[in-house]
Amino acid sequence: MKLLRVGNPGAERPALLDQDGILRDLSGIVADIDGELLADEAALTRVREAAATLPVLDAEGQRIGAPLARIGKVVCIGLNYHDHARETGAEIPGEPIIFFKAADTVVGPNDTVLIPRKSVKTDWEVELAIVIGRTARYLESHEEALAHVAGYAISNDVSEREFQIERGGTWDKGKNCETFNPLGPWFVTADEIADPGALGLKLWVNGELKQNGSTADQIFPVAEVVRYVSQFMTLYPGDIINTGTPAGVAMGEPEPKPYLRAGDVVELEIEGLGRQRQELKDA
Amino acid sequence: MKLLRVGNPGAERPALLDQDGILRDLSGIVADIDGELLADEAALTRVREAAATLPVLDAEGQRIGAPLARIGKVVCIGLNYHDHARETGAEIPGEPIIFFKAADTVVGPNDTVLIPRKSVKTDWEVELAIVIGRTARYLESHEEALAHVAGYAISNDVSEREFQIERGGTWDKGKNCETFNPLGPWFVTADEIADPGALGLKLWVNGELKQNGSTADQIFPVAEVVRYVSQFMTLYPGDIINTGTPAGVAMGEPEPKPYLRAGDVVELEIEGLGRQRQELKDA
Repeated sequence: MKLLRVGNPGAERPALLDQDGILRDLSGIVADIDGELLADEAALTRVREAAATLPVLDAEGQRIGAPLARIGKVVCIGLNYHDHARETGAEIPGEPIIFFKAADTVVGPNDTVLIPRKSVKTDWEVELAIVIGRTARYLESHEEALAHVAGYAISNDVSEREFQIERGGTWDKGKNCETFNPLGPWFVTADEIADPGALGLKLWVNGELKQNGSTADQIFPVAEVVRYVSQFMTLYPGDIINTGTPAGVAMGEPEPKPYLRAGDVVELEIEGLGRQRQELKDA
Repeated sequence: MKLLRVGNPGAERPALLDQDGILRDLSGIVADIDGELLADEAALTRVREAAATLPVLDAEGQRIGAPLARIGKVVCIGLNYHDHARETGAEIPGEPIIFFKAADTVVGPNDTVLIPRKSVKTDWEVELAIVIGRTARYLESHEEALAHVAGYAISNDVSEREFQIERGGTWDKGKNCETFNPLGPWFVTADEIADPGALGLKLWVNGELKQNGSTADQIFPVAEVVRYVSQFMTLYPGDIINTGTPAGVAMGEPEPKPYLRAGDVVELEIEGLGRQRQELKDA
């Protein structure tokens, strides 16, 4: 299933995009799309079975929100693609690098992204986001890890490189500016993604293809990421893990690096997960 | 005012500790103690004016929860005391170090703290927590910063040093284990704390005094921390900032360092903010 939330910020309505591309209104059968729903097998089955009979929702002119409400935490994996580690001159990590985005950085897939005040190095990162469906502690196998995944979505892990790297401390300082995590357009349940380790990811800036990778190049694949993270923290339904970005970010280009400016347009695509489009504005 | 939440996990009732040390039931006039309440001046005034007439709550045998529900994010400042920077052999930071704890690590002030599986270096950190009361973006002065602070509480920034420092990546890996942020017992409104830069902080392990510092030793005081953090992220009502720990953590002691084990008891105190007590257990 492709689940999404349409409407104005804070007033989104739960919806489903059916197999014919028709938008169906879920508000009659679920309160919202959130961790509580993902953990409720019976409710998900009800949605699945009712899909074809639900009222059609007119998508025309409607904003798409983030596909999940009340996100708990957003765990991020750094340097998780061989080609991206190479472009940044970093060593291949021996175990996953973990950092955080606050859930309040999450916005809709086509919402405006704000360039922070005094930012000179705002950068893009197309990423496969894992959505957690069951409480996960100390998972022991990859099979067990995948059983805790509710599905996947596109994430733009927007990053301010000066804040992240040159201002002391951890990467979090450059990862948590307002609007820095467009998510969506929809959340695709895991049963529809045959292999999360074989998805093409693309990102364009002003129409020019900048990132063109595959999750096959991930150093730590989805199942290992979930298993690993669960050793260090408890994952709850509605938590998200951004699994890292392939090569092609602004930071990896020769000087002068083409960091984002107001007016730029970023578009992102992952196979099977839809497409995002953000316009940049000054905060 | 001293605001708190009493009752079983997930079923806490909002309460007030009045000037005579009597616990008053707030559930008749506010839904809960959370960011929404803190941002609502009228509701806070209502609580203040009604306090003396509210029903008395029997504290006997009641668990105390974290004093805030629906915490958005927990921002942490690292190495923010001169004496703690010295004991860890770190340089004095030129600007605040920021890292994160997930809000789901927050537990009540006297709840059990779990030693993560495979942990050998679980450590304590008594900290002054700032509770944000108004949305804060790009604050320009210390005066403006303090106007966005709703109040203060005690925080134990429990840390697994091997996960934090020796496992690659950022500090977040050792800061986010389940139960790693006892908070409370109460949240004290800012008007009752004359100077957040002159509070004694103490921490005992099994009755032995380990930390005995003062917020006067902070490298970046409360107002500067709030102003600074607001340049890099938006702070919302109900967000928390842990402002760093003074000297006296296990990591700072000579070998063999006395990291926590199951059965240990940690007690914390900050002037005017009450006292915490946690027993350690294996996860």
